Amino acid sequence: MLTEQDPLLLRQDDSRGVVTITLNRPQAFNALSEAMLAALKSEFDALARDASVRVVVLAASGKAFCAGHDLKEMRAEPSLDYYRGLFARCAKVMMQIQQLPVPVIAKVQGVATAAGCQLVAACDLAVAVRAARFAVSGVNLGLFCSGPAVHLSRNVPRKQAFEMLVTGEFISADEARARGLINRVAEDAGALDAEVGSLVASILAKPRTAVAMGKELFYRQIEAGVEAAYIDAGHTMACNMMDEAALEGVQAFNEKRPPRW
Amino acid sequence: MLTEQDPLLLRQDDSRGVVTITLNRPQAFNALSEAMLAALKSEFDALARDASVRVVVLAASGKAFCAGHDLKEMRAEPSLDYYRGLFARCAKVMMQIQQLPVPVIAKVQGVATAAGCQLVAACDLAVAVRAARFAVSGVNLGLFCSGPAVHLSRNVPRKQAFEMLVTGEFISADEARARGLINRVAEDAGALDAEVGSLVASILAKPRTAVAMGKELFYRQIEAGVEAAYIDAGHTMACNMMDEAALEGVQAFNEKRPPRW
Amino acid sequence: MLTEQDPLLLRQDDSRGVVTITLNRPQAFNALSEAMLAALKSEFDALARDASVRVVVLAASGKAFCAGHDLKEMRAEPSLDYYRGLFARCAKVMMQIQQLPVPVIAKVQGVATAAGCQLVAACDLAVAVRAARFAVSGVNLGLFCSGPAVHLSRNVPRKQAFEMLVTGEFISADEARARGLINRVAEDAGALDAEVGSLVASILAKPRTAVAMGKELFYRQIEAGVEAAYIDAGHTMACNMMDEAALEGVQAFNEKRPPRW
Repeated sequence: MLTEQDPLLLRQDDSRGVVTITLNRPQAFNALSEAMLAALKSEFDALARDASVRVVVLAASGKAFCAGHDLKEMRAEPSLDYYRGLFARCAKVMMQIQQLPVPVIAKVQGVATAAGCQLVAACDLAVAVRAARFAVSGVNLGLFCSGPAVHLSRNVPRKQAFEMLVTGEFISADEARARGLINRVAEDAGALDAEVGSLVASILAKPRTAVAMGKELFYRQIEAGVEAAYIDAGHTMACNMMDEAALEGVQAFNEKRPPRW
Repeated sequence: MLTEQDPLLLRQDDSRGVVTITLNRPQAFNALSEAMLAALKSEFDALARDASVRVVVLAASGKAFCAGHDLKEMRAEPSLDYYRGLFARCAKVMMQIQQLPVPVIAKVQGVATAAGCQLVAACDLAVAVRAARFAVSGVNLGLFCSGPAVHLSRNVPRKQAFEMLVTGEFISADEARARGLINRVAEDAGALDAEVGSLVASILAKPRTAVAMGKELFYRQIEAGVEAAYIDAGHTMACNMMDEAALEGVQAFNEKRPPRW
Repeated sequence: MLTEQDPLLLRQDDSRGVVTITLNRPQAFNALSEAMLAALKSEFDALARDASVRVVVLAASGKAFCAGHDLKEMRAEPSLDYYRGLFARCAKVMMQIQQLPVPVIAKVQGVATAAGCQLVAACDLAVAVRAARFAVSGVNLGLFCSGPAVHLSRNVPRKQAFEMLVTGEFISADEARARGLINRVAEDAGALDAEVGSLVASILAKPRTAVAMGKELFYRQIEAGVEAAYIDAGHTMACNMMDEAALEGVQAFNEKRPPRW
């Protein structure tokens, strides 16, 4: 659990189980330094164990959402082993987002580049202000965004992803929405709060177990053939249906009353 | 073959090989009860064996297209075994649509929710009236639409599919078209007939064998790596080319005359 | 290397490493005859070995971009073995495009049908004039475009790809862009030159090694599960980072100066 001695991440919990994690290194455009990656890892580890959490919002301080890796740190002592470890630690954090039992919403208030764009792609849902922009721009420095390509190419059609990766050019929030990288665009900071709030409220209205089983199944089945996916989905849905919340939810629907959850 | 003693499904055959199957339980929003699933299974079994069929239209009576599972029936005698069987039977029907040797067009005149939305996603093609709406809304009752997620996530970009599954919210027909869930939007019921009719006419103008080989290859290759997909596609296309209809079709093209099929 | 004795393909090299290959059989709508496929194969073989090449533009002469296979030749001596070989040779050319270490941009000045549409889908990037149109129209002659389906269904959402394959109907350049088949639409021939030129210039500004490693990784990881993809991407990116161009690029960024490449 992070404390105020560790200002790289801010954590705000509300009484409903909504946890907002804020990247808080605005002077460095929230770059993913080793310390930032370690803080995210430990925070996601804690969130994964905490059954009171219902939804996570990943936000950022300052003008940029996240500028990717910390390039000063990355250039300090170059070695193949070091880079392998660094990119493995970064990938681990991205996979933790996907593996958390609760939905993670990227709240994008500014520019997201390279591994910062990857963070957005790795989240389950994403909302951005209209002024936000997105690029996988490592190639501009000679470093193709191979890591970011993984989740980007699973969000965005192939030729559009390749164009972003090889040109390093920015796309607008509206373009990001049209391509599937984000879910919603908000006019300004106030509207961003409201859009994220409406997704959060919608998720809070559902039983935690159903969402957890569904999220895990969603990413598992998407990598399988369609017949294997249906077998997996059928077992998952049967277990979900035997959960008390689903039995009560369906019963309540049949009795035309709200569920008592 | 269904008869008038079994009014859950209506079947209309025309002289061209167009079979329209109409979900006909409008008072229950065409819910997929055990009896409805069994009727669909037996109908699709019959269609799979019938070489005179050229194209199937899956339509519905009343205001809704299909509201998904029959929740009263589903809640009657809850057990893990029962639910496993139920969802396996439902998945079987969805796979039958994909496995039929002829294209199946969803003709969506109203709301499609949960396994009803899955039916639309499982069809090869789909046309909807502008007033139709789509949701995978089981999560509202505590039952994540894991089964519907299988075909939905193979039609719609990942974040958009996840948002629908976790919020349970409706999307419009226009949104469904933009996301890839349906092919065309029609202004009203008359235009729906016309759009479906134009797809049907286009399919009828092609040789049955080419369409059957192509449909089977399409879904098979999409699950393979690209090199394996090309080997499979090459063999399929060579067999297709040796079919009399293709030899005549190409010959006719070379001779600048219509094919004699 | 092709010479002027072989006018099926024109090759233009500029001093920057930009190679433009032009399909040059306009009287036959640049159909992919055996000789054309052989010329493309040998050209791509040469390009793969040539470290001075930085980007390839695949263009076409005349009104059509490419009408697919040469149907007269294809109908001359029909046999299963011949067709298997033909489609394998065609698939080989498509895979060569994907396997080249430099990006390949389709410059589409006119209609692209059947294997011609496949060529566009197989390229890494594509720009078309607004008047260009796209179809996988073999099914109109009784030959389902199973080969073109492979790259088409990896570019375009499933139902949209299936509709194109089963109806054989044309889509516009704007529709092709919305569906992900092409990246950009240009108003006319002059704008097409300019759009392709801007993509070319963007690619030339990046180190060749980073682009080559990235392109190879992009297509490799997209066929893997997400965890395996991240392991592969991490190794690739670490190797990329140890390349002199990346070390210099990142250093230059840190020193707020342009890289000395």
